[in-house]
Amino acid sequence: MTNTIKVGIVGGTGYTGVELLRLLAQHPQVELHAITSRSEAGRPVAELFPNLRHRVDLAFIEPSVANLRECDVVFYATPNGTAMQQVPALLAAGVRVVDLAADFRLRDPATWQQWYALEHACPELLSQAVYGLPEFNREAIRGAQLVANPGCYATAVQLGFYPLLHAGAIATDGLIADCKSGVSGAGRTANLGILLAEAGENFRAYNVSGHRHLPEICQGLQQATGQAIGLTFVPHLVPMIRGIHVTLYAPIRDSTADFQAIFADCYRQEPCVDVLPAGMLPETRSVRGANQCRIAVQRPQQGSVLVVLAVIDNLVKGAAGQAVHNMNLMFGLPETAGLDGIALLP
Amino acid sequence: MTNTIKVGIVGGTGYTGVELLRLLAQHPQVELHAITSRSEAGRPVAELFPNLRHRVDLAFIEPSVANLRECDVVFYATPNGTAMQQVPALLAAGVRVVDLAADFRLRDPATWQQWYALEHACPELLSQAVYGLPEFNREAIRGAQLVANPGCYATAVQLGFYPLLHAGAIATDGLIADCKSGVSGAGRTANLGILLAEAGENFRAYNVSGHRHLPEICQGLQQATGQAIGLTFVPHLVPMIRGIHVTLYAPIRDSTADFQAIFADCYRQEPCVDVLPAGMLPETRSVRGANQCRIAVQRPQQGSVLVVLAVIDNLVKGAAGQAVHNMNLMFGLPETAGLDGIALLP
Amino acid sequence: MTNTIKVGIVGGTGYTGVELLRLLAQHPQVELHAITSRSEAGRPVAELFPNLRHRVDLAFIEPSVANLRECDVVFYATPNGTAMQQVPALLAAGVRVVDLAADFRLRDPATWQQWYALEHACPELLSQAVYGLPEFNREAIRGAQLVANPGCYATAVQLGFYPLLHAGAIATDGLIADCKSGVSGAGRTANLGILLAEAGENFRAYNVSGHRHLPEICQGLQQATGQAIGLTFVPHLVPMIRGIHVTLYAPIRDSTADFQAIFADCYRQEPCVDVLPAGMLPETRSVRGANQCRIAVQRPQQGSVLVVLAVIDNLVKGAAGQAVHNMNLMFGLPETAGLDGIALLP
Amino acid sequence: MTNTIKVGIVGGTGYTGVELLRLLAQHPQVELHAITSRSEAGRPVAELFPNLRHRVDLAFIEPSVANLRECDVVFYATPNGTAMQQVPALLAAGVRVVDLAADFRLRDPATWQQWYALEHACPELLSQAVYGLPEFNREAIRGAQLVANPGCYATAVQLGFYPLLHAGAIATDGLIADCKSGVSGAGRTANLGILLAEAGENFRAYNVSGHRHLPEICQGLQQATGQAIGLTFVPHLVPMIRGIHVTLYAPIRDSTADFQAIFADCYRQEPCVDVLPAGMLPETRSVRGANQCRIAVQRPQQGSVLVVLAVIDNLVKGAAGQAVHNMNLMFGLPETAGLDGIALLP
Repeated sequence: MTNTIKVGIVGGTGYTGVELLRLLAQHPQVELHAITSRSEAGRPVAELFPNLRHRVDLAFIEPSVANLRECDVVFYATPNGTAMQQVPALLAAGVRVVDLAADFRLRDPATWQQWYALEHACPELLSQAVYGLPEFNREAIRGAQLVANPGCYATAVQLGFYPLLHAGAIATDGLIADCKSGVSGAGRTANLGILLAEAGENFRAYNVSGHRHLPEICQGLQQATGQAIGLTFVPHLVPMIRGIHVTLYAPIRDSTADFQAIFADCYRQEPCVDVLPAGMLPETRSVRGANQCRIAVQRPQQGSVLVVLAVIDNLVKGAAGQAVHNMNLMFGLPETAGLDGIALLP
Repeated sequence: MTNTIKVGIVGGTGYTGVELLRLLAQHPQVELHAITSRSEAGRPVAELFPNLRHRVDLAFIEPSVANLRECDVVFYATPNGTAMQQVPALLAAGVRVVDLAADFRLRDPATWQQWYALEHACPELLSQAVYGLPEFNREAIRGAQLVANPGCYATAVQLGFYPLLHAGAIATDGLIADCKSGVSGAGRTANLGILLAEAGENFRAYNVSGHRHLPEICQGLQQATGQAIGLTFVPHLVPMIRGIHVTLYAPIRDSTADFQAIFADCYRQEPCVDVLPAGMLPETRSVRGANQCRIAVQRPQQGSVLVVLAVIDNLVKGAAGQAVHNMNLMFGLPETAGLDGIALLP
Repeated sequence: MTNTIKVGIVGGTGYTGVELLRLLAQHPQVELHAITSRSEAGRPVAELFPNLRHRVDLAFIEPSVANLRECDVVFYATPNGTAMQQVPALLAAGVRVVDLAADFRLRDPATWQQWYALEHACPELLSQAVYGLPEFNREAIRGAQLVANPGCYATAVQLGFYPLLHAGAIATDGLIADCKSGVSGAGRTANLGILLAEAGENFRAYNVSGHRHLPEICQGLQQATGQAIGLTFVPHLVPMIRGIHVTLYAPIRDSTADFQAIFADCYRQEPCVDVLPAGMLPETRSVRGANQCRIAVQRPQQGSVLVVLAVIDNLVKGAAGQAVHNMNLMFGLPETAGLDGIALLP
Repeated sequence: MTNTIKVGIVGGTGYTGVELLRLLAQHPQVELHAITSRSEAGRPVAELFPNLRHRVDLAFIEPSVANLRECDVVFYATPNGTAMQQVPALLAAGVRVVDLAADFRLRDPATWQQWYALEHACPELLSQAVYGLPEFNREAIRGAQLVANPGCYATAVQLGFYPLLHAGAIATDGLIADCKSGVSGAGRTANLGILLAEAGENFRAYNVSGHRHLPEICQGLQQATGQAIGLTFVPHLVPMIRGIHVTLYAPIRDSTADFQAIFADCYRQEPCVDVLPAGMLPETRSVRGANQCRIAVQRPQQGSVLVVLAVIDNLVKGAAGQAVHNMNLMFGLPETAGLDGIALLP
């Protein structure tokens, strides 16, 4: 039996924070040690998130490196640009870090600065950070000190395109990712656009001219396949709380390929990716609360365009669950420890 | 002042039926004469649809040609395959018909039979029926005895692709229509899949292998542009009641074209199509209850793929409202008579 | 034909503001003259509310008395405490005012100060203001310079209890109003609690210890019936956008009364109150977008407690629609001018 | 360590069925042995409920006593009137039974027949069945062969009223239960009224004249307190999937009582009832997916009416979770075995 892992969470008042708490409070080998929030310091966590009553006894504390040095691993569930200020000191103190924000996702500081409109505080760490998509980078994650947890859309889109690109079955240019997300992806922040009265009974696209997950996806697929990628990526807001559905379109390069088999073979051993049988389509509720990606492939009308459909829970496989998966890998635990909850349906 | 038009509705217990009633009850030149339903005969309409209390005094009656012969125009809001049984007799009696179902949308009987799995009862009428998309066929509709009201997806997709195809600005092959619809599009029928507990808080695609609006869209775009069309069409179900959002992707053929101007020029005179200013994106609630299509065009990252986004209310511009628009044209009324209600937001 | 009425709106960026605009833009005898917003001055109204594109051409302007003096009537759709700062100057200039906030709803300044935690800026106007519930105060509204438009809950609860209290059929103490509202009642403000991800798929009570509509309801029922009222009032938040449903419970005093007849008689002439036939229950969607209150009465198990159920659209009969009704009365127009839109169902 | 319990489920295609499967598949001491469905016999369970893929390998089988005799316990998740046909044979074979329907909830056959409009098939078992509300009947459940699992509303209402009645703090007559439920309470059945397009964005009461949980609640409270109960019970449908919120009103009898302490004392030892601190109000999402009842008490305006607010997940503490709790008691397992999942929020 491994020893208990002491865990800290920075920025625990958002949706990825409460989801980390839900998963970690049920994890058999984790001790929640510290959870920080500047705005809520002193307030019991369970007062903010009543689902955690009698399960998480901690109160929020002021964020400081001192508080976090005693942890074995610290999760950053903060806005972009926060983790990069503190991570160097933590790493120096021997603490491992999983950043759920975007600070360490892109390897090129110039690209990062272009998309995030900030100068990077520790560009020297970008090449050292491991991109935490277990299905691509399992071994590297095992040895990582610093893991960049992937974006939610980026997780689903990469898992959907990768097997086909790897097999050479589709073109690398003219790819399209039409993506749909529930509103929890926008975070627990008081923005007019995600009020129930604004986003309910409504459907719209956003950031059509450019979304920050675009360079992340292109970088990931290029690393995984060695090929430059031409991708059009349009995100949409769905009037629901949790869930991402991506519909991917690709020009078929090898029309004799067995597309179903390509997926089945690629993910056969993966505990968190479920390739659906031919003809079955995924739905977001089938992964609600679960650390799963369910995925299907179809070739409509036996035409020249292949369609891939994949779903994840944006807060679990798209954020907190994948972060715990990464922690499990980093500490040699069973990969799905604390992640075996069944999706809530209906 | 034009004379009052006597209107009949066949199959008034579904959502297109109640929406027709809402619009026609507020129409300045319409007299509701008869509304039929086999299952609800004898029951006051307003008992089924309490929003119509004190506004529609009719009761449902048994459907029969005799009942309908006194009408100037009859709307069929019936399941596919019903109108074609009765329409020949009505036309023979001099009654004009707008069919909101699919019976007269396809010109080729063999294609119709292939997609609808029924033998057509009056194939000789297929070439005579006018496809009721006013933006394409205004003059033909004015003189029509029989109008085939377009499908909801088909309306939005055609309005979105047409200007670009007509201008030669995009390719005619490799087109993609990623379409999202609220559940009222599935009708007022007791199907498990559209229960609130099944379709709420959920997002999924359906009919990926083939949807009946596909041949309709291809036929329409080919007629309008004289070009064969290669289209991949994937519909999705959104957890909301009303609204369709289509996201269209097309390979750019003429990269020097002014795409915004192409749309603005094409629809400048159209009372029911609103081209949004550059940079603004449409949302379904902006047309809730209104007979409008709002439409935008973007070229992300100045790349090789053009993106068109269009929204309609599936029950209005996608069904009942467009049917009333067609009636207005057929009877020489102002085009937007009875159709000037402002969308309900929020 | 009456002359056109020049209308101003102060604070037009909230939900009551956009609803006023929707109704007034369709009103046959209104000219929208000015709409103010400090935060959005200079911005076209239709940019904020795309449902109004091509229907409302105004831009927001800075609020000032000078701008508003040219109006015949000014609607205040502002937060509580704003109207009372400007209304005296407008009244002095001969402009009539309908305040949709609470500034003039309570007649006693001390009670107002107790519930709204502000000193009233013009307590001398409180006795002059007419409480704008047309069903109770029609004649007084006709002659009013200043109308206090009722609160949304207050409208439904008073319409539900009044006929029974007036008839002496129920007790005046031990009354219970269990009220449920869609989230648009909380306004278009960026509060965490009304995010889709917080209020969606959730149901909760709020302000159980005391809600500001309580003294308003008690005052109104006491004025209308001459009896002191003992009421327990608990509001709840429903995961939907529009609609209020109140469920009222009262000890029966006269068990021989014909409760159905009491309601039917009381509201027979009222254009905006619809008493449902015995056995039929109201639902909020039957009044979505319409200026109607639908109401039913039941005596379960022939017991000692009477149950009244009433629904309104909180933004229409509970706010903007009732305000327009009041304006129609004040200017001698047909009562339902601009208010005859049929509810949107589904 | 206790041996593994062999479990059968009859009628596993509804929402209580899938929820039982979710809980039991994660239960440390359960072996799922058989799940029956007449309509879906032969179909893998995970095909119907994709959240169970790779977690439940069973296929539905035809229901027959023979199939179920090998089980230690059988759960009936069937419509009312089914269990009573099979249960005598199972009990005779030594199998224990938990019925999630209403067949054994009422002790008096005449009352049962009056409310369920069926003659009871085994009235002799009614007195032998134990009413499975662990907080009231823990010891009796431990020894029971046949447990009648309480209704969802009945669970929340009884837990809310009981402590106050037991303490003599409220009257026993003039009680009011205003209850609100998500639509999953209506089951997975193709009824028009629970379509998303009918029940979404809508709020309404139903069964105001009489709901079957009324006699169950009255019987339970009378048994628990020895007092006859006068209750008015009005259920409402909320546009959400899971969750019940009950708002209870009672005339205060002892105005000096410490109501908060009465609840705290009553439920201090209960693992599945959480009394909130004074001033905090419950919300349904705080128990989504969890076997918890959260409860609060308030005395608005220090008046004569006490208000109790309680929430449960109708499918968990209101059905499947409570059934597993009963099983745990019947087999001497830790009470919360398999029931320690944290609620999913948001």
